[in-house]
Amino acid sequence: MTEKKVGIADTTFARYDMGGAAIDELRKNASLKIERYTVPGMKDLPVASKKLIEDKGCDIVMAFAMPGPEVIDKQCAHEASLGIIAAQLLTSRHIIEVFVHEDEVEHDKELALLADRRAREHAQNVLKLLFKPQELEREAGMGKREGFEDAGPLR
Amino acid sequence: MTEKKVGIADTTFARYDMGGAAIDELRKNASLKIERYTVPGMKDLPVASKKLIEDKGCDIVMAFAMPGPEVIDKQCAHEASLGIIAAQLLTSRHIIEVFVHEDEVEHDKELALLADRRAREHAQNVLKLLFKPQELEREAGMGKREGFEDAGPLR
Amino acid sequence: MTEKKVGIADTTFARYDMGGAAIDELRKNASLKIERYTVPGMKDLPVASKKLIEDKGCDIVMAFAMPGPEVIDKQCAHEASLGIIAAQLLTSRHIIEVFVHEDEVEHDKELALLADRRAREHAQNVLKLLFKPQELEREAGMGKREGFEDAGPLR
Amino acid sequence: MTEKKVGIADTTFARYDMGGAAIDELRKNASLKIERYTVPGMKDLPVASKKLIEDKGCDIVMAFAMPGPEVIDKQCAHEASLGIIAAQLLTSRHIIEVFVHEDEVEHDKELALLADRRAREHAQNVLKLLFKPQELEREAGMGKREGFEDAGPLR
Amino acid sequence: MTEKKVGIADTTFARYDMGGAAIDELRKNASLKIERYTVPGMKDLPVASKKLIEDKGCDIVMAFAMPGPEVIDKQCAHEASLGIIAAQLLTSRHIIEVFVHEDEVEHDKELALLADRRAREHAQNVLKLLFKPQELEREAGMGKREGFEDAGPLR
Repeated sequence: MTEKKVGIADTTFARYDMGGAAIDELRKNASLKIERYTVPGMKDLPVASKKLIEDKGCDIVMAFAMPGPEVIDKQCAHEASLGIIAAQLLTSRHIIEVFVHEDEVEHDKELALLADRRAREHAQNVLKLLFKPQELEREAGMGKREGFEDAGPLR
Repeated sequence: MTEKKVGIADTTFARYDMGGAAIDELRKNASLKIERYTVPGMKDLPVASKKLIEDKGCDIVMAFAMPGPEVIDKQCAHEASLGIIAAQLLTSRHIIEVFVHEDEVEHDKELALLADRRAREHAQNVLKLLFKPQELEREAGMGKREGFEDAGPLR
Repeated sequence: MTEKKVGIADTTFARYDMGGAAIDELRKNASLKIERYTVPGMKDLPVASKKLIEDKGCDIVMAFAMPGPEVIDKQCAHEASLGIIAAQLLTSRHIIEVFVHEDEVEHDKELALLADRRAREHAQNVLKLLFKPQELEREAGMGKREGFEDAGPLR
Repeated sequence: MTEKKVGIADTTFARYDMGGAAIDELRKNASLKIERYTVPGMKDLPVASKKLIEDKGCDIVMAFAMPGPEVIDKQCAHEASLGIIAAQLLTSRHIIEVFVHEDEVEHDKELALLADRRAREHAQNVLKLLFKPQELEREAGMGKREGFEDAGPLR
Repeated sequence: MTEKKVGIADTTFARYDMGGAAIDELRKNASLKIERYTVPGMKDLPVASKKLIEDKGCDIVMAFAMPGPEVIDKQCAHEASLGIIAAQLLTSRHIIEVFVHEDEVEHDKELALLADRRAREHAQNVLKLLFKPQELEREAGMGKREGFEDAGPLR
């Protein structure tokens, strides 16, 4: 079996190096090829992700962004998300969106911790999608959350 | 006639195992092949559904999610829905969206009941689409609801 | 000339049989083949319409739905509409959207009348698109409304 | 050089014959073939425009509509606009959207004047796109407005 | 290596010649071919950008617009943005969106300065994407902003 290749698409706009955190987490846990592609802003992520798949042969991509707190930032995030979904449908490959909104927490320090943790937990999701899909199936409906405590299943 | 194959796409984010409920309902009522694919979140459902159709040969897919109560959750559900519609248009196959919003009812227990019932009633819809389309035609305009009491036709 | 074929895509969610009304109106006024396809909800209409065109050879489709009054219903209608437009662009065929929102009028009886009238007036539009496009051209900019009184041209 | 062909897609819903105004303006200023296609409402414009390009060989299309003042009208206009952009991307041809919202001015008479003027000024834009692109380039960033006074460049 | 070609798509609606500023910045810093295409409004930018890539062979495009302060302007910007993302996915090329909203600052003079600076800083991004991708990678997660002071990384 040839080694799997993971694409990392991230931005210079984000205020935390989530791509770096994910790469660290991936490398610690698996033997993988990694291809990184940094673009200016989140609306550049859909085509960057598609290029990672088409031109660089990535099996799966992680797309990282940190939308600001303003209405216009939310709109940009919405547009980027729709583009990322479209890119997945055009390539039939997963592009795991890892967005951390600046207003999810109050202080910069918490935001950095959240971004780091979400990036790493989604890196774990990527590993499951690639190598252990049956683990995801066992967690179906279990109220998993990335970056925060799990909500857990309804009781 | 070869046996029909139903795809079940669901998430680890949801807090109830709707996919499991639907599989139980399908198996009780028909002889079918079932292929399950669990992904982290609802925005991963469009491409998962497309892969179930293209790679696994599913004739129809059910896509399950449980969006949270926040504005951002509603936006994610909207994006996922648009992606699911696009995936249907690209494959010319039905992907029955089964979303239960956390704020549709007040208590966790009700939410679990709603999720279970909606999953099962949509499983019945899938069986009608596959085997008894004339039953759906007889119910056209009858105010059917999945998970809640039917609204019924206008009088 | 081979007989034209009209597709009727409708839902079990709607509370009035608009598809039936349109079929009655079409049959009264023209010799046509009609193919009906009933699905559970309005988000199933885009692919149902595409299948009526691609698999059943329909020259034009009418897509009927009755969105409820809640915010989530409006969002579903928006998603369905975008899907119906996309289905038209992918097939280069008209899919005439006939949506009646539950909150357009106050009472059930009015709603039934509105639904019936809108379905029939759009059936007339379908006949014009198929057989008398010059009539539509004569009505360009005339403030036509389906289901309600015409607004008429500006004066 | 073969004569250029302009498509005119308009609606019976609009309350002013903007298509007619544009045709008058085009004919006064150039020798062109014109193909007109009138549909019921604005959501029928994307596929009508695509058909004008694909089936009738139009080099460019103008798409006219007059959305009403209600929230639902704004949503329909949004859906139609997205469809018109998609139709352009699928054909690689311009479809110049000429929408006049009923609530842009207060009185019917002003609305008719605005509609007439916007239709004619966009017809001039079409002529520039077809025959004098360098004129548009000279006006880049000049704060041009169609139907109202130009905003002009920032000072 | 053949010389790279940058497309400049801009509008007559904008109130500042951002395309001109970007061209100046590009020429000062690199040897490039430049192709300019001015259209009336921002919703004409997606297909213009696609034509610059497909018909003119541009390797990358910059798309400039200056949306007004009204709700309808925001909606147009949203539609244009979605179209620009779609055009990128269809061509697998970057189209760098450079939008300056009229209400980002208070006075015309500031707006002109912002527009000029954002155009130039995004021209620098284009040069990095074309010639120095490793510089962007070094700036990943560094809180870069175009036109305003950088936010910088979280601490």
